[in-house]
Amino acid sequence: MSRPSDDIGTRSDTSRAVAFSDAVFAIVITLLVLDLRVPEVPPGHLLSGLLGQWPSYAAYLASYTYVAVVWLNHKGAFNRVKESDRGLHWVNLFVLFTTALLPFPTAVVSHALQEHDQQDQRVAVAFYALIGALLCASWLAFFHYLARRADLLAEEASERHFPAERIRALVGVILYAAAGLIGYLVAPLAGMVIFVVLPVFYALTSAGLHQVPLVHRIAHRPPTSGR
Amino acid sequence: MSRPSDDIGTRSDTSRAVAFSDAVFAIVITLLVLDLRVPEVPPGHLLSGLLGQWPSYAAYLASYTYVAVVWLNHKGAFNRVKESDRGLHWVNLFVLFTTALLPFPTAVVSHALQEHDQQDQRVAVAFYALIGALLCASWLAFFHYLARRADLLAEEASERHFPAERIRALVGVILYAAAGLIGYLVAPLAGMVIFVVLPVFYALTSAGLHQVPLVHRIAHRPPTSGR
Amino acid sequence: MSRPSDDIGTRSDTSRAVAFSDAVFAIVITLLVLDLRVPEVPPGHLLSGLLGQWPSYAAYLASYTYVAVVWLNHKGAFNRVKESDRGLHWVNLFVLFTTALLPFPTAVVSHALQEHDQQDQRVAVAFYALIGALLCASWLAFFHYLARRADLLAEEASERHFPAERIRALVGVILYAAAGLIGYLVAPLAGMVIFVVLPVFYALTSAGLHQVPLVHRIAHRPPTSGR
Amino acid sequence: MSRPSDDIGTRSDTSRAVAFSDAVFAIVITLLVLDLRVPEVPPGHLLSGLLGQWPSYAAYLASYTYVAVVWLNHKGAFNRVKESDRGLHWVNLFVLFTTALLPFPTAVVSHALQEHDQQDQRVAVAFYALIGALLCASWLAFFHYLARRADLLAEEASERHFPAERIRALVGVILYAAAGLIGYLVAPLAGMVIFVVLPVFYALTSAGLHQVPLVHRIAHRPPTSGR
Repeated sequence: MSRPSDDIGTRSDTSRAVAFSDAVFAIVITLLVLDLRVPEVPPGHLLSGLLGQWPSYAAYLASYTYVAVVWLNHKGAFNRVKESDRGLHWVNLFVLFTTALLPFPTAVVSHALQEHDQQDQRVAVAFYALIGALLCASWLAFFHYLARRADLLAEEASERHFPAERIRALVGVILYAAAGLIGYLVAPLAGMVIFVVLPVFYALTSAGLHQVPLVHRIAHRPPTSGR
Repeated sequence: MSRPSDDIGTRSDTSRAVAFSDAVFAIVITLLVLDLRVPEVPPGHLLSGLLGQWPSYAAYLASYTYVAVVWLNHKGAFNRVKESDRGLHWVNLFVLFTTALLPFPTAVVSHALQEHDQQDQRVAVAFYALIGALLCASWLAFFHYLARRADLLAEEASERHFPAERIRALVGVILYAAAGLIGYLVAPLAGMVIFVVLPVFYALTSAGLHQVPLVHRIAHRPPTSGR
Repeated sequence: MSRPSDDIGTRSDTSRAVAFSDAVFAIVITLLVLDLRVPEVPPGHLLSGLLGQWPSYAAYLASYTYVAVVWLNHKGAFNRVKESDRGLHWVNLFVLFTTALLPFPTAVVSHALQEHDQQDQRVAVAFYALIGALLCASWLAFFHYLARRADLLAEEASERHFPAERIRALVGVILYAAAGLIGYLVAPLAGMVIFVVLPVFYALTSAGLHQVPLVHRIAHRPPTSGR
Repeated sequence: MSRPSDDIGTRSDTSRAVAFSDAVFAIVITLLVLDLRVPEVPPGHLLSGLLGQWPSYAAYLASYTYVAVVWLNHKGAFNRVKESDRGLHWVNLFVLFTTALLPFPTAVVSHALQEHDQQDQRVAVAFYALIGALLCASWLAFFHYLARRADLLAEEASERHFPAERIRALVGVILYAAAGLIGYLVAPLAGMVIFVVLPVFYALTSAGLHQVPLVHRIAHRPPTSGR
């Protein structure tokens, strides 16, 4: 508390940033359902209409899982942060920006798979990949900022954590870019499959790639532990 | 606090999970109103238009009550949880996923009852029942996880609580499935009535079916106590 | 803390109920803006289109102020509550239910004033009044519940507060009913004007009608105090 | 805690006002994405459709940044406030009101730039400027209120802070008015560019214009500090 009074408002604990971020993630994850629409079919065709919307369901599942993983990542990162400053707020707002965009490419993909030709589907999958990669890039900026600001970290946090996390974010950028290329050049559906699978990769590694002694930790868990 | 530092981010208190869940429930319960639309009728027919939308109101009421009960259940469950880990986050995210879906079958049912033939209404009611049962199934997974992880529970919590809660969730799966069958095979409206009534059953039992000495507790309440 | 452990989950502090309610109020007050639409006019007529939507703006203002006052009321009430039980959760969920409905009659009124004949406008204003009165009725139930449960109140709270608040809620029911009658029988616009004015009455009295020594309190405030 | 008991509910700590405001800001910043729509183009034209929507993206970016800066401002202001009273709640609700309006002019501008003639674009840009200036005016009221209520401030807060902040808010009113005039009289696109740039000005000065020894502070930061 020895900081000068003109620092009020620029450096502070992270509680409001966390609460604000939680609200944004909660809204994004819930807004996705607004793109699941009642199918506009003539009477008697509701069942086929609902079944025909499967691309919407797949896109919803991919984006829901993605946002869920982003939230878990965010929680894991801020557990290691003691204090936030202006710069951390802005990289955090960049992460929120790219996450809040996600419902848009989700709607574009599910729409294109239902009503457009294959050329449009390639475009839609590439567009989703672009925003997905941008989201990973915002995490890269976020981790890079914290990798250089040890003074903001909690005491228990390992200083090697955030430098290592950058690699995981970079891998994400590359994987989404690859999914976009495959979806655009090879087959849109192949891109879609990767979009559903990619968040699972992130979910499994969200404890941090650098935590090598995984076996050690698993051994310390009760045998019934689910992951 | 004797946990190794690489556990930061995987095990933690439940405050963020609770705040995030509250936000999702609040958004879902409020988004339901977006399906109450201004009726598109020629001038002079607003009253009949509003009255003709009664299935929307019934569906809104059913889903609002359902989400309210889910929130109360969630509150009751997390009051008994001291700490969350990765697995608990994922079963919680599964509960949020099925709850966030609810506005979609709600819109399908209210739409079908207003503009489709009886065959579509059967489909719509069965679809609502499917998502309703899925929501109970996500609770089953949630309770099952906690039934096996006594190390995550608060000290005051009875170890018999979560194993017993699984039965209540299973009953919910069966009741929604039954409502779907009745709505599909017998009469869509009968299914609808069950959807409005079912959350009341959950509301009355949300203190936990295993709390046998109910009479005892009621006797300890002041006579003016409303439930 | 001498309560038996099977009371976990039924009686608890009010923090989650307050956070959940805050989120619902925040969503309702923000969703209102979704009914402000880009006017669908031919090129060159945007200005007249925007001006022609004035009933939307009036309805938005009325409902925004109403929800703001509901939030202030809710804050004032829960400041006096120490603990919540099942019954309090349900009357609170009833208040949230009626508040969450508000965007619907708001949209009906603003739509009717722009595109329907006067008969429809009478219906729309009466409908808004109905939901407005229902909201006050939910407060009546809320205050009535707390008036009989002194064991839930904070120690500093006056026991006469909630019994007296019932009168204020009842006055609200009557005033919205009167506004509906005037709007239906006399002139829809007169009803609209009352809808904009009524929340101001509530705002001014939200400290509680029973606090007779108002002059005393004002005298204790610094002269610059705005209300 | 020597306040009389009838002050419960009127004066209180700021936690609920902050949580409620955070939720509103989070919703507004996320609702903006709802105006990014799947382009309605014939099959095969998705790419050109997406590219043709660039005004939507520019408007989204301008409004997202604006709300982000409003949130940072709000955080900076409330860090200096110890206690809130009725008046502070109402000026805060005024800030939330103008912020919640922002998605509406955003939609008007992006719509006009895509589908209307230049006269409509002038109107749309002037309308955005009007709401932008109104938002700054609400901050002016907010800062003016706090400038006169030193009893509500935290002990560490400088008494000169809020009086000085009024100037920054007033500059905002003038700059948005100027952008509106330029957009209306000279060229709509010039106004648009100012809308994207203006929040950056606010972001850079959100620590407060009166904090003259900026150099001092920068000198105390580690060289890697990003802003």
